[in-house]
Amino acid sequence: MTQPFMFEKPLGMRDTLPAYYQTKRGVADRLESEIGSWGYLPIETPALEYYDTVGRASAILDQQLFKLLDQQGHTLVLRPDMTAPIARVAASSLKEQSFPIRLSYHTNVFRAQQREGGRPAEFEQMGVELVGDSTASADGEVIALMAAALKEAGLEDFQVAVGHIGYVNALLFDVLASTDEVDNLRRFLYEKNHVGFRQHVKSLELPKEDENRLLGLLQLRGGAEKLEEADALVHNGKAAEALENLRQIRDVLECYGVEQHVTFDFNLVLHMSYYTGVVFEGYGSRLGFPLAGGGRYDELLEKFERPGRATGFGIRLDLLVEALGYTGEKPAQTCILFSRERRSEAVEEARRQRNLGKRVVLQDEDGVENVEQLRSLFSEWIDLNGTKKEDEG
Amino acid sequence: MTQPFMFEKPLGMRDTLPAYYQTKRGVADRLESEIGSWGYLPIETPALEYYDTVGRASAILDQQLFKLLDQQGHTLVLRPDMTAPIARVAASSLKEQSFPIRLSYHTNVFRAQQREGGRPAEFEQMGVELVGDSTASADGEVIALMAAALKEAGLEDFQVAVGHIGYVNALLFDVLASTDEVDNLRRFLYEKNHVGFRQHVKSLELPKEDENRLLGLLQLRGGAEKLEEADALVHNGKAAEALENLRQIRDVLECYGVEQHVTFDFNLVLHMSYYTGVVFEGYGSRLGFPLAGGGRYDELLEKFERPGRATGFGIRLDLLVEALGYTGEKPAQTCILFSRERRSEAVEEARRQRNLGKRVVLQDEDGVENVEQLRSLFSEWIDLNGTKKEDEG
Repeated sequence: MTQPFMFEKPLGMRDTLPAYYQTKRGVADRLESEIGSWGYLPIETPALEYYDTVGRASAILDQQLFKLLDQQGHTLVLRPDMTAPIARVAASSLKEQSFPIRLSYHTNVFRAQQREGGRPAEFEQMGVELVGDSTASADGEVIALMAAALKEAGLEDFQVAVGHIGYVNALLFDVLASTDEVDNLRRFLYEKNHVGFRQHVKSLELPKEDENRLLGLLQLRGGAEKLEEADALVHNGKAAEALENLRQIRDVLECYGVEQHVTFDFNLVLHMSYYTGVVFEGYGSRLGFPLAGGGRYDELLEKFERPGRATGFGIRLDLLVEALGYTGEKPAQTCILFSRERRSEAVEEARRQRNLGKRVVLQDEDGVENVEQLRSLFSEWIDLNGTKKEDEG
Repeated sequence: MTQPFMFEKPLGMRDTLPAYYQTKRGVADRLESEIGSWGYLPIETPALEYYDTVGRASAILDQQLFKLLDQQGHTLVLRPDMTAPIARVAASSLKEQSFPIRLSYHTNVFRAQQREGGRPAEFEQMGVELVGDSTASADGEVIALMAAALKEAGLEDFQVAVGHIGYVNALLFDVLASTDEVDNLRRFLYEKNHVGFRQHVKSLELPKEDENRLLGLLQLRGGAEKLEEADALVHNGKAAEALENLRQIRDVLECYGVEQHVTFDFNLVLHMSYYTGVVFEGYGSRLGFPLAGGGRYDELLEKFERPGRATGFGIRLDLLVEALGYTGEKPAQTCILFSRERRSEAVEEARRQRNLGKRVVLQDEDGVENVEQLRSLFSEWIDLNGTKKEDEG
């Protein structure tokens, strides 16, 4: 009897076969090596967390959380990101360690999907959190590290767009009276729906000057000259503070020599409430969508009763592999096919070749379904079957 | 307001901090390297599977499964092991590839726990599956590989206990009439409760000769001479077949030169129904409990409509690290503390040292909470603060 779903996987779930694994692992190793060399120490946290602890504090929408009940009736979630779990660790296991704390992670995160054929519901993410350092040096460091890691992974032609949520808020609140109106416009930016933003601004029937200032925001994407244009658009303390912060970060990025990869984009709103300062996204040239992103989040740690300002980034491994151009090469392997009589000889030959660093399959001929097909999988093939020729020994 | 569970993790869930991660990662890298050199190719499968597909086919008790409902109302499980998911892949994505197929995995698996302070509910496992090869060469290969991997990981003094579920069944069914009675005794063996086994045998009030044969099973633990003793205890076709299989496997293990690590243990029952032939467990000398295990499972693949005989093993990373003796060393790191005026100089120095392979934290002095505590975390410390001395340049 055929059971339902016999070969199927849940919505958004994927298998990783050897050829893809090989490529992805190579990319991950290079990212890890770069991140490690900048002194970030890797940690791991559980796949399951209490909803009341990490689920609510996470930047991810509630409907994207995988939820389950434990045997005591508490609601658990599959971690939707690593920022909230790391904040939990910084405020508990690492509470005796003074700030700043540099941590890295490399793990799968989970986001429930609503539709077939859509985005993955489980994906691999690598990133860092620099917790308890409010300097522009810290912001610049994580952006420079993200750029260095992408470069080390082999991505030559990439751009990092840098914005500031403090500036966006300063401009929107300068023009609009109500928080609801600000949220409406911010949501268009969050969804990267600039047409919708424009239409909505026009529907507000604001004085022409104010309308132009809001529409002017959409033009604030480009080189360092956009910092001056942004300055001209709004005059208040919060905007000035945000722009001064960005200028300092730009100086740091120049020190690191990554300014050629950086553009400014004052339309960046990566989340409705999570980030508090600089935000950024990394784009590979072959892709129109971001494969990495991050920013400053100065209010999350408070939720875990250890106030601290923090900044970090995450890289999506699947999207990075796609941007690099996945070629599907399996590792080269040798096969030694042996008969029972020559098993000892075959084991000895396999040992010799493995010691040379080769990947060697040792295969009893009695266990093979289709020799020709097996042969096609190997770059090198050694026959040690038949009877051993004693006189040649 | 303090929320409930603010710093807590669900039952059996653990954080992995940097020092432990470092040790574990070193062990995992060595295992992976050995497994890769034997030609096993790594794959990954989703954390969530359909209960009807993988949950039911798994060797894990139903009450140990983490279950949740997806948005379509299907029951999902967090994977409790990797054998059933790999069988699913072998029968679907890899169905065009002829047997045998050698696959490896390195992932976390999930087992719900009932009590506080008990076993982990999520743990890291590494292992292999050799699918579609029924030869003794295949069984010997996976046992020899498990031994080679443990040795490569640094475990000097370990033992692999080898048994055979075919022999256990042949003896029990030879003496006892009912399947229920066989199951009762087999459960004592599964629970490694030899006192209970002995008491239960005596309570059966069998003819003395039969009672002695059943009690004799408990003595079948030791060197190759136990194969002959086992032969004397039961005379039927199935027992003879199992013992002939074990003799062939012993020959293979001698070829690999691992016989000094192998003992025979005819009491091994690793699961009530899953395994069909040879079974084995690996023990480190510092631990009384097994840290690795596996065996032949010839009936699982059928459940995925691609009949195939298979064998494999899994190693528990946490238990292996414990057996190796965890020392808690963090990686050596350098810190460069800089003032804003000397940032360029500091970035240059960090780049130079990272290129030498060092792990270097670059720290703005304005971001430090407690310089003395920070200093204590580093093996090397470089002060580039104060004003740059231009005349020394």
